Amino acid sequence: MSTLPIGVFDSGIGGLTVLKALMARLPAENFVYLGDTARLPYGTKTAGTVERYALQAVDELTRRGVKAVVIACNTASAAALPALEAAHPDLPVIGVIEPGAQAAVAATNSGRIAVLATEGTVRGGAYQREILKRLPGARVTAVPATLFVALAEEGWIHGEVVTATARRYLAPLLEHAETAPDVLVLGCTHFPPLAGVIQQVAGPMRIVDSAVTTADALAQLLSVRGLATAAADSGAVHCLVTDGEERFVRVGPVFLGRAIAPAEVERVDL
Amino acid sequence: MSTLPIGVFDSGIGGLTVLKALMARLPAENFVYLGDTARLPYGTKTAGTVERYALQAVDELTRRGVKAVVIACNTASAAALPALEAAHPDLPVIGVIEPGAQAAVAATNSGRIAVLATEGTVRGGAYQREILKRLPGARVTAVPATLFVALAEEGWIHGEVVTATARRYLAPLLEHAETAPDVLVLGCTHFPPLAGVIQQVAGPMRIVDSAVTTADALAQLLSVRGLATAAADSGAVHCLVTDGEERFVRVGPVFLGRAIAPAEVERVDL
Repeated sequence: MSTLPIGVFDSGIGGLTVLKALMARLPAENFVYLGDTARLPYGTKTAGTVERYALQAVDELTRRGVKAVVIACNTASAAALPALEAAHPDLPVIGVIEPGAQAAVAATNSGRIAVLATEGTVRGGAYQREILKRLPGARVTAVPATLFVALAEEGWIHGEVVTATARRYLAPLLEHAETAPDVLVLGCTHFPPLAGVIQQVAGPMRIVDSAVTTADALAQLLSVRGLATAAADSGAVHCLVTDGEERFVRVGPVFLGRAIAPAEVERVDL
Repeated sequence: MSTLPIGVFDSGIGGLTVLKALMARLPAENFVYLGDTARLPYGTKTAGTVERYALQAVDELTRRGVKAVVIACNTASAAALPALEAAHPDLPVIGVIEPGAQAAVAATNSGRIAVLATEGTVRGGAYQREILKRLPGARVTAVPATLFVALAEEGWIHGEVVTATARRYLAPLLEHAETAPDVLVLGCTHFPPLAGVIQQVAGPMRIVDSAVTTADALAQLLSVRGLATAAADSGAVHCLVTDGEERFVRVGPVFLGRAIAPAEVERVDL
């Protein structure tokens, strides 16, 4: 069991930022990454549809054999975790929102926390709930920032357009310095490549990205359940996509931080 | 037969710009609009996937009864028209690319034509082919402008971000004034709401949008086949979406140019 790979599911390409953190934290593990590129983006879809797609994706991963699954997509974590746990009671499944909320609460001094996310994640309110569960009295402001997804996918991660977009999304947060949040959560896996520009615009706010905390949570879970691999020779990644292998190979490196070989990518139908 | 509505199919919301032109040109007709909002955008998907989705959508429209279908999506027109015609030999089906190419050829003096479109439409090369068929020797430059889709859907149709984005996409076209195109085709139905800003940046280029020419082509087709309605009382629109009725009602007016009532929108599964 411990030699099986870890499944990582995302709506498309952005979850590669989470995979990057998982590989850095757990270099001995193997990974199967499934990106539902045919149906992305999830951020503008309703919760019921996202739940249905996530169930299909995790079915595919379990058919191939995985020892745990990371839902590396904020929208799917918010919409589908309970259904996934119910459908796979013996499979360890973790999302990115609880680790993100935990990191935000650890980082804030003022208790004023801003979350940048997709429309779907904001509307679902999962970050707000998870933060308040850990820090009652926190003031959470969630800002839908859908365009950042398209910008990251276009590879426009700095320059005039990104800066102007960040200024427009962050303006309401920066209006009153005395009540500005001190922590800004990147609540979408597409956003980390834009973190440099977002930090410039956000000034003194501390940026929190859930990928690292999620990797810590997974490491702990594997260790507790006795599922960590004992192999030394590993670190392999196999990627499954529901459409556009060529685009995945071309755009993915922005998120994964290294080149992706065509042979690492396989097309699947869900 | 002539009293049946006209089916209009799009990947999501952008095709409402085409529906707007159809309603203006054919005020006595009724329309059924099907937007595949669960699976948009089509512009970054491969041709095979888009063809499969388009076949499912037109099956749904024909099940409900339509006398003709307009493929109000450039990506789907480019990828799926031959398959749709083969699957429905008796149904008049028209796309937006041939009318757009015709309008571009009519508008150019220099024979240098630029096309702004999605990645999928540019890669497929359908505009290039249809323009060259009508004007051999034309110099066609196709520019993928994916971000415009997200900007229009966000309702950001003027301001700093759109202007900076347009400048970045159009820069290669404007570099040498003496070889700049004199016509710029908006080869995606999401782009017409941004036409004002695009025109400012594009300077003397003449902007061509295929919606009006498509409406003319449909009017002619209905008349030739004896399918134009004789009713005076009509102009009704029924909208089918595969996800996000609430979002459709909220974002749609940017494209349709009028409010959309929740009662006009129905959810369907394809």
